[in-house]
Amino acid sequence: MPPLTAEQIDAITKSVHDNFAAQLSYTQQLIRFGGQRGEEGAVQDFVFDAFATRGYAPVKFDMDESALGKHEGAGKFSPTHSRAPVVVGVHKPKAQCEGGKSLILNGHIDIVPLGPVDMWADDPYSGKIEGDKLYGRGAADMRSGHASNIFALDALRNIGLQPASEVIIQSVPEEESTGNGTMMTHLKGYKADAVLIPEPVQEQLVRANVGVLWFQIEVRGRPVHVRTMGTGVNAVDACWGVVGALRELEAEWNQRHAKTKYFEEENHPLNLNIAIVNAGDWASSVPAWCKIDCRVAITPGTTAKSAADEIETKVATYAASHPYLSNNPPKVIWNGFFAEGYALEPGTEAENILRKAHKQATGSELTTQTSTAYLDARVHSLYDKIPALVYGPIGEDVHGFDEWVSIESVKKVTVAMALFIAEWCGVEKI
Amino acid sequence: MPPLTAEQIDAITKSVHDNFAAQLSYTQQLIRFGGQRGEEGAVQDFVFDAFATRGYAPVKFDMDESALGKHEGAGKFSPTHSRAPVVVGVHKPKAQCEGGKSLILNGHIDIVPLGPVDMWADDPYSGKIEGDKLYGRGAADMRSGHASNIFALDALRNIGLQPASEVIIQSVPEEESTGNGTMMTHLKGYKADAVLIPEPVQEQLVRANVGVLWFQIEVRGRPVHVRTMGTGVNAVDACWGVVGALRELEAEWNQRHAKTKYFEEENHPLNLNIAIVNAGDWASSVPAWCKIDCRVAITPGTTAKSAADEIETKVATYAASHPYLSNNPPKVIWNGFFAEGYALEPGTEAENILRKAHKQATGSELTTQTSTAYLDARVHSLYDKIPALVYGPIGEDVHGFDEWVSIESVKKVTVAMALFIAEWCGVEKI
Repeated sequence: MPPLTAEQIDAITKSVHDNFAAQLSYTQQLIRFGGQRGEEGAVQDFVFDAFATRGYAPVKFDMDESALGKHEGAGKFSPTHSRAPVVVGVHKPKAQCEGGKSLILNGHIDIVPLGPVDMWADDPYSGKIEGDKLYGRGAADMRSGHASNIFALDALRNIGLQPASEVIIQSVPEEESTGNGTMMTHLKGYKADAVLIPEPVQEQLVRANVGVLWFQIEVRGRPVHVRTMGTGVNAVDACWGVVGALRELEAEWNQRHAKTKYFEEENHPLNLNIAIVNAGDWASSVPAWCKIDCRVAITPGTTAKSAADEIETKVATYAASHPYLSNNPPKVIWNGFFAEGYALEPGTEAENILRKAHKQATGSELTTQTSTAYLDARVHSLYDKIPALVYGPIGEDVHGFDEWVSIESVKKVTVAMALFIAEWCGVEKI
Repeated sequence: MPPLTAEQIDAITKSVHDNFAAQLSYTQQLIRFGGQRGEEGAVQDFVFDAFATRGYAPVKFDMDESALGKHEGAGKFSPTHSRAPVVVGVHKPKAQCEGGKSLILNGHIDIVPLGPVDMWADDPYSGKIEGDKLYGRGAADMRSGHASNIFALDALRNIGLQPASEVIIQSVPEEESTGNGTMMTHLKGYKADAVLIPEPVQEQLVRANVGVLWFQIEVRGRPVHVRTMGTGVNAVDACWGVVGALRELEAEWNQRHAKTKYFEEENHPLNLNIAIVNAGDWASSVPAWCKIDCRVAITPGTTAKSAADEIETKVATYAASHPYLSNNPPKVIWNGFFAEGYALEPGTEAENILRKAHKQATGSELTTQTSTAYLDARVHSLYDKIPALVYGPIGEDVHGFDEWVSIESVKKVTVAMALFIAEWCGVEKI
């Protein structure tokens, strides 16, 4: 498409600014819905209505466990897997303009847990504004970006324009745990020439991204009264032995993959997180079982399957050397992400247009980052084989307490998104 | 009292044997009640009726948190403290016989948790009998002994006799967690010349017993997304640092107290059990909090207060050396046992009579053991200052899976108890 004119850029920028109070208010509404894993139904209904009001003829569909089970990149089901629907709306142009490209705008609706609420300064779902900061669980990750997806389109509409190519708007659960929401949109056959996902990546573009695997280790020991502690297996101690073996593997992976393209400057990109521990039920009994929830990252090019095999082998090898575990091998349970990483190779037209849009919106050159967190964009990159642009606002304490997003940054990013959409898709009069 | 005659011994022994089917059936009923911590109300009602039927005019009374709070040896309250009542029945003789001594028969009604039920071969509350083994949670610890208390008295009654001194029969909750059930009987003023508690101590007499303290350590870290793991405090790691410090203290205590009377031959009597671990809530968040439940033992003569002070100092000293914990000190929460140990000095008349009774019932000399588990007898020993006899049947997997008690052992112990009661209290015709 031809570059936007200076007049178009000014008009689109002004349009985002003019409607920003409404965008902020809508974002606060999204935050106030909350909606922990499995509880995203109400907020998805709200999103459905927001899409419908705008004429995107949204549809809802459920997770198809059977279809997901057949895809190598689908996350593994567990009892806590969300059954909330995926919501997808589609903007259809009146006439596809020549050279215009179709686009997926994707945003996840799920949020992570709060942790102990008393460690928050305020109600985690307050949507409170203080200065430039909008607070709340999901404020940054990624209810603000989720709102930007439709408000970037609104900015065009409010000046009588709309994309002259198809735009698919996706609101997905399970981005924080399996990636199965976005995987379902892939399995349903939604396709476009590029995808943009406004995750809170500090106004940068994600150049490369780790893959992530979730798993549990379950050790069961032989419980005894603590008075005879020496004779019983302490499951916590046994489990910590397994963790030690996994830490060795983590170190080995970080060394082995230090030269992976785009990861050369990362100090320790492949983190193993021992995140949840549950063991024992009585202070005077030696704990008979210990279950830990782990998350580990892999570099692009490593398949989830090969990483999982290495983990299972490492655990089995350690167990074989352990007097108790050799007869009672720890279980490795795959219960979430089973995802390969991806890289966005430089030089795509999509990236180039986003670079211009970012410069126009912020005055700065777009920089890139290597992301060491999971991103749904891997579905589009690996399986749709399209340029996957993860680009979004500045925010902090994602997954922590007092999560916030910069309001000014959301505004700038929304301008950049609207400019990107206009040039990538082309525009037509409504 | 004069020794029992050979005829009396034979008659009492036969009486226990004749009624043993009923005793076994009653014990199975007790097991089938279950009744986890706080849920002992129904089984206490059943016990109340069993006492009432026998004319022991039972009373029920509640935990008096305020009175308990003033006693140095009371366990610390927590939200999981049982509110089930204590049940106490009293046998009054027609006439106190000269030289006869009063007696407390004490048994705890509470049981410990089951752990994962699928690790039991059968329903944990089955009361199943296989060969000599009676199975179930509490079969050994100590529903069988609890039943023996009244069936030993029944054995006398069934041959037209009853103790010629007062016998107080106590059914207490909270023996597995605070000791507050028996402490309440002390605070209510129940007194006797000796106490017998048929805990499953392998047909031995407990010569000395550790004290026990329960506490929790709570660490709160700064959570972050695992992608920036280096910058957040992992509460599990921080907590394991505290555990390391406590393990040092455990080693020091075991060394320091190696020469404590009656503990000279114990290899490692003062066990610190890291029993329950709960940390984190999301696999992709660095865990922000970790809470562990601990149990530690102390030798007789060490006060709970001085041990608690040492623990708090150790934790505080470690925290002061830790970059994060120095500003966010771990909490030490005392949430259960706060109990000193005791020793039964040899040579009491009570012990001597029990020795004879045991020999008569089993044909073997009574041996003694040093117990490294908590026992309610410390209340009677330390605060009533009476001989506290802990003596009971053979059983295994107390606090474990497939707990069982030897039926033959229960029978022998019940004979020994009946003989002991007859000689210690004296007997009179009903």
